[in-house]
Amino acid sequence: MGDLVLTTFDWVPAPPRGFVRDLRVRWALEEAGLAYRVATTPFEEREAVHFAQQPFGQVPWLTDGDITVFESGAILLYLGDKSAALMPTDPRGRAEAMEWVFAALNSVEMASLPWSMFRFMGFPGNAPEAGFVDGFLKVRLERIEAVLASREWLAGGRFSVADLLMADVLRPVDRFEGLAAYPACRAYLARLTGRPAFKKAHADQLADFAAADEARAGAG
Amino acid sequence: MGDLVLTTFDWVPAPPRGFVRDLRVRWALEEAGLAYRVATTPFEEREAVHFAQQPFGQVPWLTDGDITVFESGAILLYLGDKSAALMPTDPRGRAEAMEWVFAALNSVEMASLPWSMFRFMGFPGNAPEAGFVDGFLKVRLERIEAVLASREWLAGGRFSVADLLMADVLRPVDRFEGLAAYPACRAYLARLTGRPAFKKAHADQLADFAAADEARAGAG
Repeated sequence: MGDLVLTTFDWVPAPPRGFVRDLRVRWALEEAGLAYRVATTPFEEREAVHFAQQPFGQVPWLTDGDITVFESGAILLYLGDKSAALMPTDPRGRAEAMEWVFAALNSVEMASLPWSMFRFMGFPGNAPEAGFVDGFLKVRLERIEAVLASREWLAGGRFSVADLLMADVLRPVDRFEGLAAYPACRAYLARLTGRPAFKKAHADQLADFAAADEARAGAG
Repeated sequence: MGDLVLTTFDWVPAPPRGFVRDLRVRWALEEAGLAYRVATTPFEEREAVHFAQQPFGQVPWLTDGDITVFESGAILLYLGDKSAALMPTDPRGRAEAMEWVFAALNSVEMASLPWSMFRFMGFPGNAPEAGFVDGFLKVRLERIEAVLASREWLAGGRFSVADLLMADVLRPVDRFEGLAAYPACRAYLARLTGRPAFKKAHADQLADFAAADEARAGAG
């Protein structure tokens, strides 16, 4: 195994702090107990070298020797192959983890991200587009609620990257009070974000961006 | 390997025909030359047995002996493990395919699905929510365009499930004329949907739903 390097932005403004997607990778690395270091790429001037690593100009990406992986979902499956702490190792458990990883990122986040961005932007919310997205998120959350009411973990009867991703997908919904009607989702989210690995990952992201503020102030 | 069974709806109304997600799985199975049969679940009355297989009440799901997988992305990665026609087998190629699978389903479809649904619903499009989604899709397509302008395939220098998914994610955008400003995307989409496996999968989906119409008419 090479030296694992997680690249994120060198700084971001206050609102997305605690929600930048390097958090998902930090969290997984902490759960797995894998050694890593954090590198940065400029937030304000996205350079060609950035797009060469991450074609959307987003973060994070993970470098492992001569392999680089972008997309938080792909990074987490890649790390899942390295650590049984992140993924079941039996075929059925792996298939379950895989399907719930995509459920989080394709079935739920496709509704939850527009929903939370509309709130973040402060749109009035009376447009038909807002109604469509409200309804889209509602049918997804109702189904996740039914699943989580009957079990603790999404896949294989144990914690996996599927839970990590579903929890991080639910966090922005909860931030805008979107889980009020879904007690099983709220309890699940509290359980996941109560894990020491999440707390460390979250604190580390906030600390790194706070240090970047200080470096800027010092440079000013 | 068990007997591969792909389950989709027994019928759908006309507008989504050709776009129901079993198409992605049919296409992959045809590319891989894997034998399969198609089973159906009721579209109009979603029963408990359906939610037990696919917790969102959607389709498709794939059954392989005693393993069932839902989410088209997870199914395609599962099939990728069975067939080198669908996924590179070297670690770097696999990592690339994986990241582009998530790029299609998380970075692009998260913008393209709301965008195309807003058009499908005939919303007036002057709301700030519509403007946000237009801008979100634009920044994604501009980056995909830059990538596709310089290469034929997304991952590993060859066709993979990443191309299959990206093409199917771009199809609804193209349906509503959203690729007009992106010639590399249009050429890529034409190249992918020109493949015999896509044509067969698409024709089979349309034929199955047409047969369902006839069965309904006969029963009426």
